[in-house]
Amino acid sequence: MNQPTLNDKPSPRVRLRLQQDDHIFIGPGRADVLQGIAETGSIAEAGRRLGMSYQRAWSLVKAMNTDFVEPLVEKQRGGQAGGGAVLTPAGKQVLQAYRNAEGAARKAALPALRQIQALLR
Amino acid sequence: MNQPTLNDKPSPRVRLRLQQDDHIFIGPGRADVLQGIAETGSIAEAGRRLGMSYQRAWSLVKAMNTDFVEPLVEKQRGGQAGGGAVLTPAGKQVLQAYRNAEGAARKAALPALRQIQALLR
Repeated sequence: MNQPTLNDKPSPRVRLRLQQDDHIFIGPGRADVLQGIAETGSIAEAGRRLGMSYQRAWSLVKAMNTDFVEPLVEKQRGGQAGGGAVLTPAGKQVLQAYRNAEGAARKAALPALRQIQALLR
Repeated sequence: MNQPTLNDKPSPRVRLRLQQDDHIFIGPGRADVLQGIAETGSIAEAGRRLGMSYQRAWSLVKAMNTDFVEPLVEKQRGGQAGGGAVLTPAGKQVLQAYRNAEGAARKAALPALRQIQALLR
């Protein structure tokens, strides 16, 4: 079988959002901010990686901290660069569940996306 | 079990794209145009339903007709309103496969999205 795989281009992009009307609770941008904070320990640095201003990253963090039963991100006073930020246990749980949802969605969509890919010029 | 279902708000949105670099082969907008043409027999009417100009809808159709090994949409001369448009067999196949991919992705993502939903305030 010489079927094209989706490791070849074109690549599938799967974007998931949990939202109510226009309000997004979690989506690709918020998840990337959480992941950036987990990896850098800094809201500013997480934003920078994403080409996002500190104000934008912080406003997404504030929204998530309000939307969930527990804050997802905790600011830490002091330390280097005037205080960093970490994911709370709830934050880690939400990020992990979101990545799991993405992975499962992508895997489930692959067979049908391969059918489309096979029809591309 | 009184677990919230995702029939309740907030609702999950799953968006799939097949793309290469910045070029989109199929995604939510193109799929909706195909579906609108299947349902209305008209590119203009399909665009209107989506709040899209005729020019925009037609440019998406032209791109898809070029990207795939066979055209997905065929214009028909004559008939009411100066000629309609229909999906070709390839067009029907791509639309169906795309909707299948969406459905499978959504279903696969639900368990993890329910975990997130359970943590919402």
